[in-house]
Amino acid sequence: MEKVFVFGHKNPDTDSITAAISYAYLKEQLGMNVEAVRLGTVTGETAYALEHFGFEVPRLIEKAATEVGRVILVDHNEKQQSVDDIEDVQIIEVIDHHRIANFETSDPLYYRAEPVGCTATIVKKLYKENGIEIPKNIAGLMLSAIISDSLLFQSPTFTEEDRLAADELALICETDPLVYGLEMLKAGTDLSGKSLEDLIALDAKEFMIDEIKIEIAQVNAVDVESIMSQQGELEDLIYRVIAEKGLGLFLFVVTDIIHNDSTFLALGKEAERASSAFNVALSNNRGMLKGIVSRKMQIVPVLTEALK
Amino acid sequence: MEKVFVFGHKNPDTDSITAAISYAYLKEQLGMNVEAVRLGTVTGETAYALEHFGFEVPRLIEKAATEVGRVILVDHNEKQQSVDDIEDVQIIEVIDHHRIANFETSDPLYYRAEPVGCTATIVKKLYKENGIEIPKNIAGLMLSAIISDSLLFQSPTFTEEDRLAADELALICETDPLVYGLEMLKAGTDLSGKSLEDLIALDAKEFMIDEIKIEIAQVNAVDVESIMSQQGELEDLIYRVIAEKGLGLFLFVVTDIIHNDSTFLALGKEAERASSAFNVALSNNRGMLKGIVSRKMQIVPVLTEALK
Repeated sequence: MEKVFVFGHKNPDTDSITAAISYAYLKEQLGMNVEAVRLGTVTGETAYALEHFGFEVPRLIEKAATEVGRVILVDHNEKQQSVDDIEDVQIIEVIDHHRIANFETSDPLYYRAEPVGCTATIVKKLYKENGIEIPKNIAGLMLSAIISDSLLFQSPTFTEEDRLAADELALICETDPLVYGLEMLKAGTDLSGKSLEDLIALDAKEFMIDEIKIEIAQVNAVDVESIMSQQGELEDLIYRVIAEKGLGLFLFVVTDIIHNDSTFLALGKEAERASSAFNVALSNNRGMLKGIVSRKMQIVPVLTEALK
Repeated sequence: MEKVFVFGHKNPDTDSITAAISYAYLKEQLGMNVEAVRLGTVTGETAYALEHFGFEVPRLIEKAATEVGRVILVDHNEKQQSVDDIEDVQIIEVIDHHRIANFETSDPLYYRAEPVGCTATIVKKLYKENGIEIPKNIAGLMLSAIISDSLLFQSPTFTEEDRLAADELALICETDPLVYGLEMLKAGTDLSGKSLEDLIALDAKEFMIDEIKIEIAQVNAVDVESIMSQQGELEDLIYRVIAEKGLGLFLFVVTDIIHNDSTFLALGKEAERASSAFNVALSNNRGMLKGIVSRKMQIVPVLTEALK
């Protein structure tokens, strides 16, 4: 049987990497010839989770069609987030928890999306539906994904289904989520070896709001000030990105994973409008978002409303 | 709780109507306030199934947003096949077995598509996954949908999963699928009260192949010749449609449900190219497709290949 690739989005986070591994394992048990691969560098957080539960980092690919004819997407569906030659392969399955956009197939497929906080929560259900037992180390990966996407169960994207999944997975992998989770998240905030260019690109996503192109980069941190103290150099780099991409706004969000607040740097023509959308007065291009940790649920919708 | 509409596609077939009813019943059991509605006239076949198992025809709607804010789509996802004001409501769920195209949401949703022959096969799984028992009459509706979409288990779209679902549903509703199914399909071929205009519009779908707009209308029949004997009048009507819509091809397909063959009438600039794609020589604009019953799997892909 010809091999099928399973992969998450570009700039992969822990959910994208671990969902590929855990869903690939399930498909293997069901008799499919699959390989979990990745579309970018893994974060320190993901590397910590993989090592903790005894997994290798999946192989990096730049093209899919040179090796396979069919692929399975996890944790994404929008073409611009997927492998560059996605148009040249057949998408046979999608397992995801995002909105559906810029996605089209010519054939029927298996598509499973649920409005939950994490792809792992859906993959866990699929093990159950298919009657396949979840191995201890795979359960650990899935738990890591839920911890990551929910910022240790704090994010408003975290649903009751995610909670139930996390509880059950914690039992299977015999891991205390609060102790392990904080260590894992901290590993993700270790920015040694990361340049400031890396910081503003690592977890950056572009959005179009009406005719305005905006980019929001998010970094998790324990010590927010150690990043923000380099504001001058960050601004130099961000202004360069704004000019190159023709952005109306670049929002650099540093999320304090201990206190669950975010500090932001807003640059570009729409910076004032953006910060007033959050009832925050910009001071030296900076602002503070009390209790805000989720780009998807707490930042993008507010900006969408304000900028259109 | 605000009501949610559940509906299938325009020009509804038995699967679209019965999937709306059976999925709405499931959602009600799960505590949602839902109403199954329809976007067009039910066929004779569907009316037969509804009456046989004791259901009313669902209410016809022309707009959704005037009554509800949220909807669930079954048996379709493409916007042009859905309610006219689909852009004005939130799609919270999709249960479907077609390709995904011309579909986009701004929020995460529950999307369940599987490459099986019938939406009912997926709905049946959802009853099981949610631990809800399938009532006898609902099982009858689902079985009717599988019989309809598979032309009594003959179509190449019919999968092993559909077969397993049909077997189980037949047991629940205590119905012999072969006896009941033939009666139901025959009811669908009763064209009394149908004008020739109805015939070419009842189950017509438009497709774009490269820059060529084509339309394929399909009618099931026991007595193919009684329809084709009116070829002259059919052609007059079809040429009018071709001119109005700027079609490159109109294919009128009459499928013999007893012998599982189809006779077609091909009109328009691309008629010759279309028939040679099937290795059939047109004679008096007509041709015969041996063993071909599925527009989705046996006609559209061949034309796509030939016309691009």
